Amino acid sequence: MSQKNRILSGMRPTGPLHLGNLLGALANWVNMQDEYDCYFFIADWHALTSDYENTSAIEQNRKEIILDWLSAGLTPEKSTLFVQSLVKEHAELFLLLSMITPVPWLERNPTYKELIGELNNKDLSTFGFLGYPVLQAADIIIYRPYGVPVGVDQAPHVEITREIARRFNHFYGDVFPEPELILTETPKILGLDRRKMSKSYGNAIFLSDSPEEISKKVSRMITDPQRAKRSDPGNPDVCNVYDFHKLYTDPHTVEEIDEQCRNAGIGCVECKQKMAQGLIKALAPIREKRAYYEQRPELVEEIMVEGSNKARTIACETMEVVRAAVKIKN
Amino acid sequence: MSQKNRILSGMRPTGPLHLGNLLGALANWVNMQDEYDCYFFIADWHALTSDYENTSAIEQNRKEIILDWLSAGLTPEKSTLFVQSLVKEHAELFLLLSMITPVPWLERNPTYKELIGELNNKDLSTFGFLGYPVLQAADIIIYRPYGVPVGVDQAPHVEITREIARRFNHFYGDVFPEPELILTETPKILGLDRRKMSKSYGNAIFLSDSPEEISKKVSRMITDPQRAKRSDPGNPDVCNVYDFHKLYTDPHTVEEIDEQCRNAGIGCVECKQKMAQGLIKALAPIREKRAYYEQRPELVEEIMVEGSNKARTIACETMEVVRAAVKIKN
Repeated sequence: MSQKNRILSGMRPTGPLHLGNLLGALANWVNMQDEYDCYFFIADWHALTSDYENTSAIEQNRKEIILDWLSAGLTPEKSTLFVQSLVKEHAELFLLLSMITPVPWLERNPTYKELIGELNNKDLSTFGFLGYPVLQAADIIIYRPYGVPVGVDQAPHVEITREIARRFNHFYGDVFPEPELILTETPKILGLDRRKMSKSYGNAIFLSDSPEEISKKVSRMITDPQRAKRSDPGNPDVCNVYDFHKLYTDPHTVEEIDEQCRNAGIGCVECKQKMAQGLIKALAPIREKRAYYEQRPELVEEIMVEGSNKARTIACETMEVVRAAVKIKN
Repeated sequence: MSQKNRILSGMRPTGPLHLGNLLGALANWVNMQDEYDCYFFIADWHALTSDYENTSAIEQNRKEIILDWLSAGLTPEKSTLFVQSLVKEHAELFLLLSMITPVPWLERNPTYKELIGELNNKDLSTFGFLGYPVLQAADIIIYRPYGVPVGVDQAPHVEITREIARRFNHFYGDVFPEPELILTETPKILGLDRRKMSKSYGNAIFLSDSPEEISKKVSRMITDPQRAKRSDPGNPDVCNVYDFHKLYTDPHTVEEIDEQCRNAGIGCVECKQKMAQGLIKALAPIREKRAYYEQRPELVEEIMVEGSNKARTIACETMEVVRAAVKIKN
C-alpha cells in the first residue's frame, strides 16, 4: 500500500493542451508524481456545462488530452489517469450533494459570474452550469483525497468543495475529509497576441504543434509595439517574446538578448528565431513521447480504462459509506 | 413481449399511505395494471429534496410503502415495482439533463413556489430542491413510457418533463418520446379535521390502521358544525362523515342517512359508527394482504429487487442510446 498522500485534479476536454495549460497545471502534476499518490481525470461530463449545444468535439478532445498528458510525462506507473464519465458514481454523489447544497452558495460563486461574462456567446443559464461546483465537489471528495493542486485562481473552487464536504459531514457524520488546497506555481505565459493564452482566441502554442508550426506561430508574436524599425532600440520589459526567452533560452543568452535589444543589436525576427529554437527544443521530449503513444492507441485506451477501473474501486468504496451515512442503503 | 403501452409513476417514501393516497393514486394504479405495462417506483432519492436534514425514516417508509402497495393490490405478476436508488442510471441521466435545463424553467415551476410556502419549516433553498423536476424528468423518460398517470394537480410536473425531453431531442436527436399525461380520477377526500388529509397534519386514516384505530379516528371526525345537540337537525351537505358514507356505505343506506340526519333521526355518533363499519369492511382485503406480506419480508424484498433489476435493464438500454446521442460514449 502506498503511504503517500492522495491528491486529485482534473481537466475539461475542451481542446488540445497548450503552453498555458502545461505551465499552469500539467508540469506541476508531472512533478508531483513522486511525492503524491496522484489521481488525474478528464472531466468530460463537465465539458457539457458549457458545450451542451455542440458535443461533437468532446470525445476527440478527450483523446487529445490523454495524449498530451502522457506526452508531457504523466505515467500510469505513477499516477491513476481516468475519465469522469467512466466512473458513474460521480453522478450519484452529485445527486446526493445537490440535496444539501444551498443555491445561494452557487449564485455567489465568483467563477460563476466570471464565466457567464466570459462565455457570453453561450447560454449558460442552465441548472447544470449553476451546479458545476456541486459536480466538482463530487468529483473530488469521492476519492477522499488529502488535497487538490490548483493555481491561485482556482482556489475558490476548492473552498466551495470544502464547504460542501463540511455540510455533508454536519448532516450525516464524518465521511469526507476536507481536501487541502495545494497552491501550485503558475508562471504567467501570454498568448501570441499578449492576451491570455486560449484555444478560443487562436493565440495558443499547442504541445502537439510541430517545430514548423511553432516557428510560424512565434514569428507572428507581438513584440515591443514601440519598436517600429529594425534600427530602433527595443524594450524587453514589455516584450512577450522576451518573457518566453526567460522560460526557454539559457540564462546567458537571455542576458545577451536583453542588451542587444536595447541597443538595436538584434532584430525581432532573429530574436524570435532564437526563442523558437529554445522552445522547440524544450518541447522535443513531449513530441517524442507523443509520437510513441500516437502509434499505440490501444495502449492509450488501456491506460485510461485501467485507471478508470482503479478510480472506480475507490469511488465505490466511498459510495458504500455515503449510502450508509445518508441511510439510503441498497 | 408485452404489447401494452408502458406507463410509469412513483411515490416519495415520506410515510405510510393513507386513504387520500389510495383514492388519489394507488387505487388508479391497481386498476390500470391490466390495461398497461406498469412501472411503479419508490422515489427515495426524491425524499431527500425535503428531508435531507433527517433521513432516518426514509428506509422504514420505503418498507411501509411497499407493503401498502402490495396490500392495495399492486402485484409483481402485473407490474414492475422498483426502488429509484437501486437504478443508479437515474442519477446519470439527472446529471445530463441538468446540463440542458434552463434555471428559469425551474424557478417558474408553480409546485416549487407552492412547496416552499407549504414546507416553510424546512430550508428548501437547496440546489437539489430547485432541480427536483429535472430528477423527476430523468425518472420518467429513462423508461421512455407511453404516459404518466397523475391527478390534475400533478399535471405541471409532466409538462416540464415533456419540455425537458423535447429540449434533449432538439440538441441530441430523437431519443425520448414525450410522455403523455394520463389524467386520473382523484375523488377528494378530506382528513378527520376537514383539512387535506396528510400525515403531517395528524388527520389521516392509514391503510395499515387496525379496525379499532379506524373506529377511534372516525369517532373524532368533524361533522356539521352547526349541529350542536343530538336533537338538532343536521346538514349532510357540509358533513365530512357524509362524504365518507358516499364512498364506503351502500347507496340505499346513504339515502336513509341523508334523510335521518336532516330530521335528527340519527345522531352523529351512530352515523359515524355505521360509516366506520363500511370503511373497515372496504379496507379488509387490504389488511388481509398486508398480514400476508408482513409475515414474508424476504418475499417483499425479493419483489422489489427483482423489479429494480428489470427496471434497470431498461434504464441501461436507454442510457446506451443517450450516451451515444450526447457523444459521451464509454
